[in-house]
Amino acid sequence: MRFKEIGEFGFIDSIKEQCVISLGGVIKGIGDDCAVFGPYSGRVLLFTTDMLVEDIHFLRDTITPYQLGWKAVAVNLSDIAAMGGKPLYCLISLGIPVEMNVAVIQDFYKGMKDICEHYRVNIVGGDTVASPDKLIMNVSLIGDAKEDEVIYRSGARPGDKIYLTGNIGDSCAGLKILKKEISPPRSMAGYFLKVHNEPNPLIETGRILATSRLASSMIDLSDGLLSDLGHICEESGVGALLFRSKIPLSSELKLLASRANFNPLDLALSGGEDYLLLLTVPEAKSRDLELLFKDERPSPLYLIGEITEQEGIRMVSDNGSVEKLDPKGFNHFMS
Amino acid sequence: MRFKEIGEFGFIDSIKEQCVISLGGVIKGIGDDCAVFGPYSGRVLLFTTDMLVEDIHFLRDTITPYQLGWKAVAVNLSDIAAMGGKPLYCLISLGIPVEMNVAVIQDFYKGMKDICEHYRVNIVGGDTVASPDKLIMNVSLIGDAKEDEVIYRSGARPGDKIYLTGNIGDSCAGLKILKKEISPPRSMAGYFLKVHNEPNPLIETGRILATSRLASSMIDLSDGLLSDLGHICEESGVGALLFRSKIPLSSELKLLASRANFNPLDLALSGGEDYLLLLTVPEAKSRDLELLFKDERPSPLYLIGEITEQEGIRMVSDNGSVEKLDPKGFNHFMS
Repeated sequence: MRFKEIGEFGFIDSIKEQCVISLGGVIKGIGDDCAVFGPYSGRVLLFTTDMLVEDIHFLRDTITPYQLGWKAVAVNLSDIAAMGGKPLYCLISLGIPVEMNVAVIQDFYKGMKDICEHYRVNIVGGDTVASPDKLIMNVSLIGDAKEDEVIYRSGARPGDKIYLTGNIGDSCAGLKILKKEISPPRSMAGYFLKVHNEPNPLIETGRILATSRLASSMIDLSDGLLSDLGHICEESGVGALLFRSKIPLSSELKLLASRANFNPLDLALSGGEDYLLLLTVPEAKSRDLELLFKDERPSPLYLIGEITEQEGIRMVSDNGSVEKLDPKGFNHFMS
Repeated sequence: MRFKEIGEFGFIDSIKEQCVISLGGVIKGIGDDCAVFGPYSGRVLLFTTDMLVEDIHFLRDTITPYQLGWKAVAVNLSDIAAMGGKPLYCLISLGIPVEMNVAVIQDFYKGMKDICEHYRVNIVGGDTVASPDKLIMNVSLIGDAKEDEVIYRSGARPGDKIYLTGNIGDSCAGLKILKKEISPPRSMAGYFLKVHNEPNPLIETGRILATSRLASSMIDLSDGLLSDLGHICEESGVGALLFRSKIPLSSELKLLASRANFNPLDLALSGGEDYLLLLTVPEAKSRDLELLFKDERPSPLYLIGEITEQEGIRMVSDNGSVEKLDPKGFNHFMS
């Protein structure tokens, strides 16, 4: 069997046994946005990594080097945000085509340094190697939090409310514009390209959720709403019901969809790279949560559904009709 | 200017400013085998990463998938050993060609799991992505140690003795056999190929050195003796004098060299990937060190030179003649 047939999640399932050989210190291994270990003086450490490979995750001519550096760190920061952590230290591995211009790589590194400075992360080392032709980046990031602040994927319970911290689908629209699947006027394209190429990880939102101790589970949206909500459901042993009319869509996306004749909900449900936070909150705490986010600070907050005992993800329309949804997120091997 | 002209170390010099933006917690950033941060309850954490790219660091047909997995983790463990640390948790990022056979990757992962189990390291997560054609691996590893146990590159002082923990040059001979630059009989080749493809990081030796508090500086040999000794000299602001007749060479290497007509000292000085420990020890403690390593447990130990106030690396022969050596290690971009 070849890799493209088994896919990323199939492969992870096939190797995840016996990875943790000594339980001492490991609080969470494979299966969440970050690994968690410790505690050290009452705090636990969060540990995450992401690899970006040219022509798989990006095309060199559709993103500036600066944006690429920014984004490579941003996707890792988003994993720390999803656990409610504070990012601290990162290592940057680069595989650089030997013919690449040094000034380009320095621009790229500038993007990395700027986002690290913005989020108060120290770049403490890395590895710089040659690559035969493709640019390769791997960022490893460590953060921390108090042990009882950390929010896992596994805590969702039936009756919990499901919230999302912003409009969804814009990044996927940006990707479709880059791939020339949609060709809007230039003035319209800029918004989506910026969302796609310059994600802003929700560290502050994650910290507020962590310290408030209101959320029962959380994940960041990287693979797409259905896929990522599917991870929460799987880890928590529950299902979910989404409210069709409550899925938050930007006015920009609605306008683009009407002009380019597609259903924006498709991008919202199955697109990826939104880097928003998706969380669940027990019903009794949902009013406190909404008060905490009033005036859309630090993020907007949208109630989009609720956790159910019945497994699987379903969506209910305003007319009461319910449809079953098949989680289809961005899967690197099987797209 | 292109990347191959500036090289790995030139690039690192060009970007290392302003990487650490908040000193709180960072004990050592760029410039040692691991980053060091903390302390947490009197312990500090060691953080390192290495990227291996197909056709740069290995050829798929000269190493088994199992050995490749073993080696990808081993090179990171060696960085923890070089600081005197205990390895704890790793993340594994894989960029996998979509056409690759799943069984091959599982063999590869078996090598990773076996070395992690051997050295009591937990695999706590990672990232699995597609790659257009080359196999890419990035391992990030965290270890720890007591704050005053950690051995840096920067502590060497004039008069310190320089020690090496094993025979050197065998791995480079293995590489030359793989590249068909040397073609010994099969019975002779096996030894060198095993040294090159299955390095054993010296974790136990590093721990004994850390707890004994005898070493003033340490590094692992990955780039080659001259290059790595050069790093100690640069970070410590000193020079070194090597004793030509004391550089430890295996009987296998001497035999191979006499048959294939090369000078084994060239491989010993400028080869790479030995994954031994190179350390310095104040003269007053050198007898204690030698007693600690008597009977070659946990490693052999060879006195190979001494640290000098005069900068640069020189080598003295038994007849008293001194030559200046130019550090030429394995440089990924300029080879």
